[in-house]
Amino acid sequence: MSEKPLILISNDDGYSAKGINELMAVAREFADIVVMAPEGNASAKSHSLTTSMPLRAKKIREEAASGHLHSLAIYACNGTPVDCVKLATEHFCPRRPTLVLSGINHGSNASINILYSGTMGAALEAVTNGYPAIGFSLLDHNSDADFSACLPFIRQIIEDALTVGLPEDIALNVNFPYAKQAPYKGLKVCRASRACWSDSFEQREDPYHQPYWWLTGKFICNDTTPDTDQWALENGYVSVVPVKPDYTAFEAITNMKRLEK
Amino acid sequence: MSEKPLILISNDDGYSAKGINELMAVAREFADIVVMAPEGNASAKSHSLTTSMPLRAKKIREEAASGHLHSLAIYACNGTPVDCVKLATEHFCPRRPTLVLSGINHGSNASINILYSGTMGAALEAVTNGYPAIGFSLLDHNSDADFSACLPFIRQIIEDALTVGLPEDIALNVNFPYAKQAPYKGLKVCRASRACWSDSFEQREDPYHQPYWWLTGKFICNDTTPDTDQWALENGYVSVVPVKPDYTAFEAITNMKRLEK
Repeated sequence: MSEKPLILISNDDGYSAKGINELMAVAREFADIVVMAPEGNASAKSHSLTTSMPLRAKKIREEAASGHLHSLAIYACNGTPVDCVKLATEHFCPRRPTLVLSGINHGSNASINILYSGTMGAALEAVTNGYPAIGFSLLDHNSDADFSACLPFIRQIIEDALTVGLPEDIALNVNFPYAKQAPYKGLKVCRASRACWSDSFEQREDPYHQPYWWLTGKFICNDTTPDTDQWALENGYVSVVPVKPDYTAFEAITNMKRLEK
Repeated sequence: MSEKPLILISNDDGYSAKGINELMAVAREFADIVVMAPEGNASAKSHSLTTSMPLRAKKIREEAASGHLHSLAIYACNGTPVDCVKLATEHFCPRRPTLVLSGINHGSNASINILYSGTMGAALEAVTNGYPAIGFSLLDHNSDADFSACLPFIRQIIEDALTVGLPEDIALNVNFPYAKQAPYKGLKVCRASRACWSDSFEQREDPYHQPYWWLTGKFICNDTTPDTDQWALENGYVSVVPVKPDYTAFEAITNMKRLEK
């Protein structure tokens, strides 16, 4: 008989964010849950690791199984989302996780945003160590965002991952349109749009007449054919992009072989 | 007549590291140089951005063109390598860079290491904004590492990029074997090996009897067929992997379409 499933959950908004608490509640319907998430906001931490200081972790709360809900243990860590996944799988999970979830992020991780995302950093890190992983994000930065329309889709996707399974070395990057676009029209499996952030730093001067800059920027995406995540999101669909932790541009290898001469 | 070429250089070891100074010296043979690099060590910062504090930058040094060397201006920034590329291209480069270089990193960015790498974060960020970009790394963490065997290859690769050009939206991830393996046998254009870091955190106890963890870990790579970067490096070749800022696993899209049902 196989072991009882265990789901590890992380995010980049911190363990107390609304999004991760919504995800915990749904995931407890399926499996025992261990949460290890940053103490506070760790957005835009991408795949970064903490090597200059030691990691700390503290237990926030533990709840026994009750009714249709499985057990829950929540830990906060002073590291990045990737640190959380590494430390939790090695030292805090009572057994090997069946699945790793990250989110629900407050804000988009579609298209190029995945590069900067701590939420997706956690999911991709899990995949490098052989854990099936899914990141969830809602296109709403509000700390009190309305996640209710996401939940039926999250249930469907978790159930599929636990029963059918994900392809080896593949994570899913799932994004949800703004709640005001709900009910969502359905779900589209797609590729990531090409896009960029056109940076417009805001320059200011401190009281000592020294300049400093705040990063701002505008998201620019001209790649919105119907096979892309941006198209899906702009048209009221949930976007699901299968992703893997490999940047190799296979299509450019032949061309660049000229350097071997 | 086209403008005089300008090369922007960054890294993740900081502006004063030996590796970036070796790269500046070679790149000055080809173009005017602007360097914007972290003040200190920003290794393992991946593609992370600074949003919780303002960015600062200061000029470290400026040198006029002299003999066969073009001009040089060096700035240090309190942000990540990705911040450096963003801030430099918008506020510090006198004109649009022809090419963005990152490195020479002290340590490997081959295989899965690219995920964590601030050096490659800078190169991939440049590509998202349409700049051809190349990251260079030597498999030697020593602060006084011997980069001499890298330099002829770096010259060749920069010259190729400035004359032939790189494919659109593609950066190069160039890694060099340890200097003791020089003279290198040649150069291989390859794909990134699949690998993982098997994490073994070292647990300690502070004077107040509280636990803390240092990230350590062992690099495990079983994917070393001759088309991979790990094979090239282990066999004395310089590895060149064309990379793009897109994690989409195209091969998994058809399979995952089952979720649309």
